[in-house]
Amino acid sequence: MPNPKAAILVIGDEILSGRTKDKNIGWLAEELTALGISLKEARVIADDRETIIQTVRSLAATYDYVFTSGGIGPTHDDITTEAVAAAFGVPVIRHPEAMARLTRHYKDTDIDFNEARQKMADIPETAELIDNPVSAAPGYRIENVHVMAGVPSILQAMFTGLAPSLQGGVQPTRITVQCAIGEGTIAGILGAVSDQFAGVSIGSYPWFKPGQFGTAVVLTGLEIADVEAAAALVAQKVEAEGFAAKRDADNSIIGGSGIGGGHE
Amino acid sequence: MPNPKAAILVIGDEILSGRTKDKNIGWLAEELTALGISLKEARVIADDRETIIQTVRSLAATYDYVFTSGGIGPTHDDITTEAVAAAFGVPVIRHPEAMARLTRHYKDTDIDFNEARQKMADIPETAELIDNPVSAAPGYRIENVHVMAGVPSILQAMFTGLAPSLQGGVQPTRITVQCAIGEGTIAGILGAVSDQFAGVSIGSYPWFKPGQFGTAVVLTGLEIADVEAAAALVAQKVEAEGFAAKRDADNSIIGGSGIGGGHE
Repeated sequence: MPNPKAAILVIGDEILSGRTKDKNIGWLAEELTALGISLKEARVIADDRETIIQTVRSLAATYDYVFTSGGIGPTHDDITTEAVAAAFGVPVIRHPEAMARLTRHYKDTDIDFNEARQKMADIPETAELIDNPVSAAPGYRIENVHVMAGVPSILQAMFTGLAPSLQGGVQPTRITVQCAIGEGTIAGILGAVSDQFAGVSIGSYPWFKPGQFGTAVVLTGLEIADVEAAAALVAQKVEAEGFAAKRDADNSIIGGSGIGGGHE
Repeated sequence: MPNPKAAILVIGDEILSGRTKDKNIGWLAEELTALGISLKEARVIADDRETIIQTVRSLAATYDYVFTSGGIGPTHDDITTEAVAAAFGVPVIRHPEAMARLTRHYKDTDIDFNEARQKMADIPETAELIDNPVSAAPGYRIENVHVMAGVPSILQAMFTGLAPSLQGGVQPTRITVQCAIGEGTIAGILGAVSDQFAGVSIGSYPWFKPGQFGTAVVLTGLEIADVEAAAALVAQKVEAEGFAAKRDADNSIIGGSGIGGGHE
């Protein structure tokens, strides 16, 4: 059975204006990969009701899991919940358990648990709460969509709590082979190995430092034996051409800031 | 006339696996905002031919400008160019000017300008080159789609070079008012001001540090006078409730790591 597929939906004008830099896509991507869930797409969209409705519907219909971040706070521009409920055609209710949690959270503080803050207890009727151990106001799951806060520390706490409820798959095996060879020189080898191992994805990430350069070759796949064999073949072919190749102990990248094929 | 609308398309398995953290969305978002181009959406997709074709077609039809990053290097997994050309129904050619630039770049080095590296001169037939002052291999524009490298330093150099060719709009005015008040307390004020100034977008970003907390209120709009008036009204209403409010000199955020509505 193939691994479940997922999408991330980041909702927030402040990301699209560049004012706030998203940290949630990268963090969730690593977590999902570790769970054996294949992240297929990530989107950033504006705090716009119709856009949220259409995008949630489309992603929920396409993927096994959707994870959203942002727009569930107390202010007028926090419209995610209203839009997500509309996407599924259910009403928003003031959720009794969410109200109880928020009431406990604000009790014995001098913060007024006013109408704006009570709005954080508004949840689509058919949703289940996602715990927020940081600041009480819960996220929620409705069908296959998990709605979480945008603040990275809260999102991370929410996801860590809900992760055991997800149906994971096979965690991919990832092997990095460090090659003392330019990306353009190794390209032919990688194409040949890739043709031979259809289930192994091979990425190449050139790196440079004063007086040295090389390419980190990252092999990923669900079948351990195939990934091992493909990595061994890359190393063998690189060495056969007279260049050094060494399997990375920790699978980290040396100086790798590259995305996609780097230009040498 | 409203500002032109744009989308960013990041192409790369390594972003979706979490192995590489994207830096291009945040950087491009700031640049586009500064040019008066409204970024409406950003997507991250896999190195998958059909996905690239469909997404490029859809975004190119929806927005005035599309900016892509990733997948134009020399290796087998660099399939962006082939897919973008297919999206527009034009053939890929080995571009003479791109070949000339790469030939010059590799001349007098001990790097073999082999077939894999020559592949970086493959460009959709109707495209115009985008200069790459870092490593020669060009990006290109085809219709309203700008195809750039994924390596942040190269993407930034490419975009900086092409920016003067873009039709910008009005750069939004952005004013930050720092308020010594919780987000849940200020929410009512912000809702009221937002209702009164339809053209002003108001975001709120709670922050905390030991012994202190507050909310940065960020007001953005195309009409300077409206943004100024809305900011003054926010400050006046916050002060009328007995809390301090101060316009930020540099529009920066104190301790702001929040995305969307923060949970207090």
